[in-house]
Amino acid sequence: MTQLAPVLDEIDSSLDASVQRLFELLRIKTISTDPAFAGECRKGAEWLVKELKSIGFDASVRDTPGHPMVVAHHAGATSDAPHVLFYGHYDVQPVDPIELWHDDPFAPAIKESDKGAKIITGRGSSDDKGQLMTFVEACRAYKKVHGSLPCRVTIFFEGEEESGSPSLKPFLDANKDELKTDIALVCDTSMYDPQTPSICVSLRGLVGEEVVVKAASRDLHSGYYGGAAANPIRILAKALADIHDENGRVTIPGFYDGVEETPTQMLEAWEKLGKTPEKFLGAIGLGIPSGEKGRSILELTWARPTAEFNGITGGYTGAGFKTVIPAEASAKVSFRLVHKQNPDKIRDAFRAFIRARIPADCTVEFHPHGGSPAIQLPFDSPELTKTRNALAEEWNKPTLLLGGGGSIPVVGDFQTYLGITSLMVGFALDDDRIHSPNEKYNLNSFHKGQRSWARILDALAK
Amino acid sequence: MTQLAPVLDEIDSSLDASVQRLFELLRIKTISTDPAFAGECRKGAEWLVKELKSIGFDASVRDTPGHPMVVAHHAGATSDAPHVLFYGHYDVQPVDPIELWHDDPFAPAIKESDKGAKIITGRGSSDDKGQLMTFVEACRAYKKVHGSLPCRVTIFFEGEEESGSPSLKPFLDANKDELKTDIALVCDTSMYDPQTPSICVSLRGLVGEEVVVKAASRDLHSGYYGGAAANPIRILAKALADIHDENGRVTIPGFYDGVEETPTQMLEAWEKLGKTPEKFLGAIGLGIPSGEKGRSILELTWARPTAEFNGITGGYTGAGFKTVIPAEASAKVSFRLVHKQNPDKIRDAFRAFIRARIPADCTVEFHPHGGSPAIQLPFDSPELTKTRNALAEEWNKPTLLLGGGGSIPVVGDFQTYLGITSLMVGFALDDDRIHSPNEKYNLNSFHKGQRSWARILDALAK
Repeated sequence: MTQLAPVLDEIDSSLDASVQRLFELLRIKTISTDPAFAGECRKGAEWLVKELKSIGFDASVRDTPGHPMVVAHHAGATSDAPHVLFYGHYDVQPVDPIELWHDDPFAPAIKESDKGAKIITGRGSSDDKGQLMTFVEACRAYKKVHGSLPCRVTIFFEGEEESGSPSLKPFLDANKDELKTDIALVCDTSMYDPQTPSICVSLRGLVGEEVVVKAASRDLHSGYYGGAAANPIRILAKALADIHDENGRVTIPGFYDGVEETPTQMLEAWEKLGKTPEKFLGAIGLGIPSGEKGRSILELTWARPTAEFNGITGGYTGAGFKTVIPAEASAKVSFRLVHKQNPDKIRDAFRAFIRARIPADCTVEFHPHGGSPAIQLPFDSPELTKTRNALAEEWNKPTLLLGGGGSIPVVGDFQTYLGITSLMVGFALDDDRIHSPNEKYNLNSFHKGQRSWARILDALAK
Repeated sequence: MTQLAPVLDEIDSSLDASVQRLFELLRIKTISTDPAFAGECRKGAEWLVKELKSIGFDASVRDTPGHPMVVAHHAGATSDAPHVLFYGHYDVQPVDPIELWHDDPFAPAIKESDKGAKIITGRGSSDDKGQLMTFVEACRAYKKVHGSLPCRVTIFFEGEEESGSPSLKPFLDANKDELKTDIALVCDTSMYDPQTPSICVSLRGLVGEEVVVKAASRDLHSGYYGGAAANPIRILAKALADIHDENGRVTIPGFYDGVEETPTQMLEAWEKLGKTPEKFLGAIGLGIPSGEKGRSILELTWARPTAEFNGITGGYTGAGFKTVIPAEASAKVSFRLVHKQNPDKIRDAFRAFIRARIPADCTVEFHPHGGSPAIQLPFDSPELTKTRNALAEEWNKPTLLLGGGGSIPVVGDFQTYLGITSLMVGFALDDDRIHSPNEKYNLNSFHKGQRSWARILDALAK
């Protein structure tokens, strides 16, 4: 502990300064899905390169056909420690509906939450700028105290995670020699609760699709054409409604191919956590699970596939009323995948399902928005054990192995292109409102996250 | 014809000037449904008062809780001629999607259509500013030639027809003595085709409803909550999808109460017009009737009720993708009513139908947007006969009596509050794209419309 203790002290004493640095990053509007913010995304990448250089990393902005990547390298103190690849993403979700934010999403601040915790507010504070900065700040502290890092570290920051990661695979493929390490550390997940350190060992995959139903060649007056002309909202609503049966199961043929039943032992371990629908959904004003009937909340969100409708629009949606039959209507649909579900097959099956519900005089267009299979990581690697123990020491509680409901496509891509497995360690909390108005990151997550990474790097080097 | 011929000549020779006056009115952005345009609506009313005063009408802007009305009076040449009430509306539909307009919707111009006809372009050119100005210009010509009008005329222009007419009933009730006449002339309908003068003798009613489904207390991440939390888009899509059965019939209990079968004789007369689905729908790129199976296009649009979805929105609808489960989703739904369907009962039945489909942990809100019963006018009044003959002379073709698919609530309100029936005479055409981008009014409609009103006023006075 002679190595580690002064690093932890340094983290404690420089917390205010590290918060100020995070604020700088949070002020940059790195919304990757909206082309209007491309300049801001580049600015975010450049800011990170500047920061990493200040810690002694050999860092650079790497252009892609989309938003740039950031890659940075730092030697380790000894050659027998593993070489780790740290991943985070500097892009963020859009901020609409903006009117629901209590503060400017890009003017971060420290506030007190209604639970009495100190929180860092702003878009990206949790997902994923706050998280990735825990690692950067751990490196900074280690470097300051010891003049070196315990392991050789390569940092890889992406700028398109929130928009389907179109450049990720080609970039990994083109730079696999540079990015190949012994193991990846991915910081984009949550803790089970504010007290329990957690490592995520499975992730759902994702298929995103936009469907556009087109009927008449122009918007129509519903008095004149109503009852005669095809209404694309009606066609779309019917097609979407057909996707779930009355038991919450997805009806698309072949959808459950490759889905395995969760082992009883795992279900029992989750059952012990006592996460009832009331507890899980009560915090967001709900109480009835909407998914497949007869399965627990944790199984539904960690181990079962879903079909969700993320957006729908068509016709007149402004103030007042307009008796129009619109020319088109569209929806954004996503599927969460588990186990061996094949994203390409799911996409094809969805399109065939929708096409079969489009009248002969109408048309439908599909626009793909990313796809990745589910991930299942090993339970028994030495790196996992070291990391579990390091986290347990910091949080003074055994580390929980859990499943992740969301997708982190990069974990699968690291496996495919670099041949390495990932340790998913994150400090976000369930109430961080990621992707929603009033996103926040607990100051405690930011602080103990830095300390956790210092411990993990130290443990991995031993 | 000594009275009439010089009036028709005056209309012909002053056509250019009358077009310029119409352009002035078309430039005023009288979008009644959007509160941002309240000032423009008032400006439109004031412009009309100025015009009517210039013809010798005793005209005034009349305030309401919404947009103002215009009321104007002019004496007739003889006291034994009937007193007519002319109705039109100066408000217009919104212009979105603005990107589909070829020209500024509020910069009217004369252009040549792709069919080779001269057309007046702009929002409201047909619905209803161009139409109402045919009557104003007929009065102007008559007055200029004879120094008088053949009948006593009261003009009544509304500014809320496109937004549910919230002030109409109270205004008629409060001013019934002033507005009561022998008959109403309503100019807000179409001709059957460009050659066939038409009088509309039945109109569908309308019920407008906005439904808002609310689920979680905030937008959610679909990875974390997908499969567990209620998705309001899914709930809304399912509820809307349930409204029509596989034969295009509306499934809401009691919806068809008061609907009568169309008399065989009328169906046969319509059949002779040869309006096939291909002809009716082909012009808008469609070909398959969407309404109740086994009924003709004209029956579906003139004599059958409908449920139409005019707008839907929820979740992320911008560029790219956002894996959100939204907190709410909403739709604008309208029903076209026929015969004795009761708007209040239809509204209640719709709300009960939707409520039955909302999960217990979600809520639903409804916002009413107007309601009016269907209208059936007499076939055999002397005024109808005189008007049929006057139109037939102008257009050199027998006048067709037809049904209207849209709603003109004022016709029912004139019956209720003033105790008078209406003659619905209009010169719009099916391809005028009312309520859509690139609305137009044929110059021929504007010109012969003026001539038609001069003939009708002359005929009614005899």
